[in-house]
Amino acid sequence: MVTVTAAEIKAAVEAQRDWVSRLFDRLRADGLDEPGVSRDPYGAGEQRAHASVAAVARGLGLEIEGDAAANLYMTLPGTDRSRPKTIVGSHLDSVPHGGNFDGAAGVVAGLAAIAALRQCGIALASDLTVMGIRAEESIWFQVSYIGSRGALGTLPDGALDVRRIDTGRTLADHIAECGGDPAALAARQRHLDPAKIESYLELHIEQAPSLVEAGRPVGICTGIPGNFRYPNARIEGANDHVGLPRRFRRDAAMAGAEFAIALDTLWAEYDERGIPMACTIGRFYTDPAQHGLTIVPGSFHFSLDVRAYDEAVLAELDRKVDAIVAGIEQRRGVRFHLGAKARAAVGPADPVIKSGLQACADSLGIATLDLGSPASHDGAAFAERGVPIGMIFVKNRNGSHNPHEAMEIDDFLEGTAVLTAWLSRTMGG
Amino acid sequence: MVTVTAAEIKAAVEAQRDWVSRLFDRLRADGLDEPGVSRDPYGAGEQRAHASVAAVARGLGLEIEGDAAANLYMTLPGTDRSRPKTIVGSHLDSVPHGGNFDGAAGVVAGLAAIAALRQCGIALASDLTVMGIRAEESIWFQVSYIGSRGALGTLPDGALDVRRIDTGRTLADHIAECGGDPAALAARQRHLDPAKIESYLELHIEQAPSLVEAGRPVGICTGIPGNFRYPNARIEGANDHVGLPRRFRRDAAMAGAEFAIALDTLWAEYDERGIPMACTIGRFYTDPAQHGLTIVPGSFHFSLDVRAYDEAVLAELDRKVDAIVAGIEQRRGVRFHLGAKARAAVGPADPVIKSGLQACADSLGIATLDLGSPASHDGAAFAERGVPIGMIFVKNRNGSHNPHEAMEIDDFLEGTAVLTAWLSRTMGG
Repeated sequence: MVTVTAAEIKAAVEAQRDWVSRLFDRLRADGLDEPGVSRDPYGAGEQRAHASVAAVARGLGLEIEGDAAANLYMTLPGTDRSRPKTIVGSHLDSVPHGGNFDGAAGVVAGLAAIAALRQCGIALASDLTVMGIRAEESIWFQVSYIGSRGALGTLPDGALDVRRIDTGRTLADHIAECGGDPAALAARQRHLDPAKIESYLELHIEQAPSLVEAGRPVGICTGIPGNFRYPNARIEGANDHVGLPRRFRRDAAMAGAEFAIALDTLWAEYDERGIPMACTIGRFYTDPAQHGLTIVPGSFHFSLDVRAYDEAVLAELDRKVDAIVAGIEQRRGVRFHLGAKARAAVGPADPVIKSGLQACADSLGIATLDLGSPASHDGAAFAERGVPIGMIFVKNRNGSHNPHEAMEIDDFLEGTAVLTAWLSRTMGG
Repeated sequence: MVTVTAAEIKAAVEAQRDWVSRLFDRLRADGLDEPGVSRDPYGAGEQRAHASVAAVARGLGLEIEGDAAANLYMTLPGTDRSRPKTIVGSHLDSVPHGGNFDGAAGVVAGLAAIAALRQCGIALASDLTVMGIRAEESIWFQVSYIGSRGALGTLPDGALDVRRIDTGRTLADHIAECGGDPAALAARQRHLDPAKIESYLELHIEQAPSLVEAGRPVGICTGIPGNFRYPNARIEGANDHVGLPRRFRRDAAMAGAEFAIALDTLWAEYDERGIPMACTIGRFYTDPAQHGLTIVPGSFHFSLDVRAYDEAVLAELDRKVDAIVAGIEQRRGVRFHLGAKARAAVGPADPVIKSGLQACADSLGIATLDLGSPASHDGAAFAERGVPIGMIFVKNRNGSHNPHEAMEIDDFLEGTAVLTAWLSRTMGG
């Protein structure tokens, strides 16, 4: 076993700076769609990113593989290939007009860690696979974790028939077009056996400015939120004349406003109590065919995403949403049609991995913060199958899912150093 | 002077029932656009209604005239044609997919009153003109009182350049196409001189079920509300990731919801205090190009209509809206862009006309209710020019501006009897 110092790891990671920066530039150019980048899943943007990443992996001499979901596996073989492997992964798609780092940073970090381990002369006892995951951004197909659940054989029923919101074509069509095999996915054939995965690690930019606020470069993830969602909810009221007195109204938009404010108030209470959660009404609109300046809105549409880090909290919020709906229906004479409900399980961070990452950061002298992930991540799909997971967050200004996200390469290299040290400590042969 | 009894007037109005019913059926067929009717102003629906009404007026031997705004004037000459005339008017357009009676009932009532006066052998001392007014429904051009203000030479600046929301063509184009003269309107040539109008009367279906609630067929109007409006307001926040903690958010849709609920709460307080007003957010929506299930809305759009019966109350509400906006901007880190503001003055009902209508109803044994008009009406344009106005409301189920409005002919004839009695008492030669 080769023993390396913290200083050697930092230096080895630092040595990757130039090609890492060039790869990020390349990825930005691949997905450019001003403002920002659009790496559309199972589309041209994501395809180009996969090709650029695979080319770098080939240059590093890694084994390249695909699967039925067209995920990209780039493997550094271990000394004992029969041992359960470790996966360092993230997704290569983005939201429409998103930033360059959300997802891609985790894949680049995996490749940079391999290069740094090589430079330190560290051989790994088991396989280390960097995974470029497909279609994590659920805005496109409104299905969570398509790539990772495809790999694990856990795609939900009906997912392959869902249509991408912009193209109107099915997920199955899109997957086939990108070299995947939707029939194999439909048959639940899996590429990854959870029993043969030692752990799943992911580095990701932070998606709320908590590290910016705290002035620290790296966060250690305490968990990935579960959620429940109503992608296409509707409120039915009555279209009426603009002068109708208040007592006669069945105003669907006002009911929607009361619903939103009730949830926001609930959220403020949970914040006060120190229980992390979030709720978002991403779509919130009067019917374009009916609405007008002088008509009381008779129908209203919204989407809802409610997330928390504890299944019991989620269940409680679910009940409270139902109670809020019932109260508004009664008070305002409207009817809520919540529509299809989607759920994603909470993905708790593995405590052993978490403390290992913390110890590595400490030994490298890197200041960290414990952070609940604001967002969902593919790790939750692995955790759901019993794979221990860990996540590293990197400081990032301006949030994510917008063109203005701004991660510094210095901070990225700090996060990558923590990842490299952990791989060295855990897998060093 | 011919003296007629209340019973004779009721019988004479009742005698018009058959052709009145047929004319309503004809008007429904003219505008049929399931669900409901669409008598689009300066378009095919309104044109057909004008033709049908004019044909009936010709059958009654009335003088037919038009003006630059393509309004329809149907006049029963008085014994002294130099005296100021009385106008009984209402509009012949409708909202898209509206009901058959909103507007049209007032024109039909005018014609029915003339027929009843004739049957009673009553000659009028001055001209009585039934006016089929153009384009009262402001949803189409978002300009109030186009026909009546066109007739009075008080169209607001720029009105002729406004485009109809469905066709995208200007008001000037539409007017010209229907035989009007937009150049004359632009030059503020007027067809009606307010000094030569004795009074303006309008019968209209009720637009809130106050008479239904009270179980009375007829309402006597106490006033027409003024309003201020923001047809195209916008809130600017920040698009962010669905997991962003609450303290970091600048959620434009949540700001819109808080705005709506603040207004609704204010309205409930005014209701408690017995001060009539109304506020409506007819359009209320996230940006279709940006919104999604997993994005915090960074922009939000809405329209606002606030109405009241007292200029001082309107001014107070205007100040309160500004204060609500300022508070939300400060609390939520968003920016309101209220955009163009439109105003319409309060149209107070003339007290002499009001008490005259009341006396007529009493003499006919018809139960009435004092009613503030929930809606705006052309009468406000006449009141603004100093013409004394009065309105009669007729019981109507299911509100208006929707296909389900339901006025009974029995109730319509009661309202028409009040109008006929008033014309007989006021104008009988």
